Amino acid sequence: MKKPIRVAVTGAAGNIGYALLFRIASGAVFGPDQPVALNLIEIEPAMKALKGVVMELDDCAFPLLTEVKATCDINEGFKDINWALLVGSVPRKAGMERADLLGINGKIFVGQGEAIARNAAEDVRVLVVGNPCNTNCLIAMHAARKIRDIPTNRWFAMTQLDEARAKAQLAQKAGTSVNKVSNLVIWGNHSPTMYADFYNAKIDGKPVTQAISDHEWLKKEFLPIVGKRGAAIIEARGLSSAASAAHAAIETVRKLVTPTVKGDWFSVGVFSEGDYNVEKGLIYSMPVRTEDGKSWSIVQGLEVNEFSREKLNITQKELMDERDLVKGML
Amino acid sequence: MKKPIRVAVTGAAGNIGYALLFRIASGAVFGPDQPVALNLIEIEPAMKALKGVVMELDDCAFPLLTEVKATCDINEGFKDINWALLVGSVPRKAGMERADLLGINGKIFVGQGEAIARNAAEDVRVLVVGNPCNTNCLIAMHAARKIRDIPTNRWFAMTQLDEARAKAQLAQKAGTSVNKVSNLVIWGNHSPTMYADFYNAKIDGKPVTQAISDHEWLKKEFLPIVGKRGAAIIEARGLSSAASAAHAAIETVRKLVTPTVKGDWFSVGVFSEGDYNVEKGLIYSMPVRTEDGKSWSIVQGLEVNEFSREKLNITQKELMDERDLVKGML
Repeated sequence: MKKPIRVAVTGAAGNIGYALLFRIASGAVFGPDQPVALNLIEIEPAMKALKGVVMELDDCAFPLLTEVKATCDINEGFKDINWALLVGSVPRKAGMERADLLGINGKIFVGQGEAIARNAAEDVRVLVVGNPCNTNCLIAMHAARKIRDIPTNRWFAMTQLDEARAKAQLAQKAGTSVNKVSNLVIWGNHSPTMYADFYNAKIDGKPVTQAISDHEWLKKEFLPIVGKRGAAIIEARGLSSAASAAHAAIETVRKLVTPTVKGDWFSVGVFSEGDYNVEKGLIYSMPVRTEDGKSWSIVQGLEVNEFSREKLNITQKELMDERDLVKGML
Repeated sequence: MKKPIRVAVTGAAGNIGYALLFRIASGAVFGPDQPVALNLIEIEPAMKALKGVVMELDDCAFPLLTEVKATCDINEGFKDINWALLVGSVPRKAGMERADLLGINGKIFVGQGEAIARNAAEDVRVLVVGNPCNTNCLIAMHAARKIRDIPTNRWFAMTQLDEARAKAQLAQKAGTSVNKVSNLVIWGNHSPTMYADFYNAKIDGKPVTQAISDHEWLKKEFLPIVGKRGAAIIEARGLSSAASAAHAAIETVRKLVTPTVKGDWFSVGVFSEGDYNVEKGLIYSMPVRTEDGKSWSIVQGLEVNEFSREKLNITQKELMDERDLVKGML
């Protein structure tokens, strides 16, 4: 039997956590032959609910799940982990300014970054799901690096939900199935400023701009639909996206640990080294591939036309503003 | 590409439905090469929330999910389906007698049985999850058979949750992993009277009664722990089991469509033909195997000792009482 992969999940008793844990335990992320151990992390008031979640995990009798730890001590929670899925964050409340939100969450992610640096396994990788995820990731990465050199290429922010939302909208517009849509990169921040790059995307191997003749729709309607999709779901369900966010987290990790299909790429927020003239040092979503499921690289040479460049700059500006608001924590 | 399997799910916007749909769409039930279409059924007041669930399913861009229908019209909902997962039911409220509960749910399941008979595909199979699931299944089966001859061996009630709960408890007591526990049959009703047959169960190939020396625990503590597990989860989470119930539904269908491991069996409520001297005509959980993932049979020859027989009779008595309470609908 293979050595288990140990995965920490914060916000484990929350709605996204609840939708995520059972799928990790079932083998949906690391495959049907890979045992997993779960370190579930919650704040103290949620520990009773988390106990119920652990009971339900027990009650699934998952053959691949070797151990479940539940804790509100982040040092214990991040002990020996190979993956950290940082799902928990404080949601924006009415009357809260973005600076307030960044400040509150920033402190959480400083603490988590430090605890990861002190406790995680040598090969730890970190995916931030809790919003604002790009800047939360940046904060955690900086906090960790003051303690231990975890390379910048091990830190990720989630834009797979935007990618899937964009693919679904393009498929619906083109009247085809979603598995025909490929090469869709989300650039920038996981926020309404993200840019779903339809110029480089393909449907059935052809450029989207050929498959969908209504370019005004692509430029003026498609992007706001994707950008505001989260709000549309809250309006319908009365609750924010949970299962689809959990699925996006699963897809992010799965795509990072599985060789990418030839000719395709996927979107994930990574530390910018300046590719595509993006400001260095931001966590910025880019087109990424992995050949071996271990190391990854940014796909080079995509055309960024004038329309796209403007969009890349807008989302970059937002990330720079966010970075400035938390500069005391970096 | 294979023809999609069309699956109807009632109560699709409820908590179990929400935990179930995304896993079906991901391939967890019918495998990674089998496309699925989902017919999601809800009552009218839940249609807006269901629309949000459909949006989230879209936003997962599942490659295997070919179509999603959402409806509150059960005739449309059961049209051409190959599987019906009847998850929705009215929960028992404070002050409600069992007869009231059976009466309210009975009417729902009469309507659903009739709609299945009128609309479903030739090969339809039905799994009832909504409680009281054994008797709800009996009612739906009888209602359907007044319209069309759907064979009795296509109707199932869910006891996989009890089976998994029992396996988890045995593994914990024996200090081993849950995948070492096999041959565990749940007999009878999905209710606290169910009998988790530890006499025939094995741990690492050895009888449980050898692996666990504390027979008083097996006889006096183990069964109540499993029987009252649902209440313990509600106490901890503040919500009833959803993800584990959804997983049990997944496991029931998956085990029915996948050849059973040599020497093992699994538990599911089926129409009693009198095996093990169980009253004919009840939906009673039995040890079942399938060799080809299509037809199934009851495993014969298990020893039923005096202790076990008493337990089988208690749960049978409860099912006979339930049947009597709904006899006007049969």
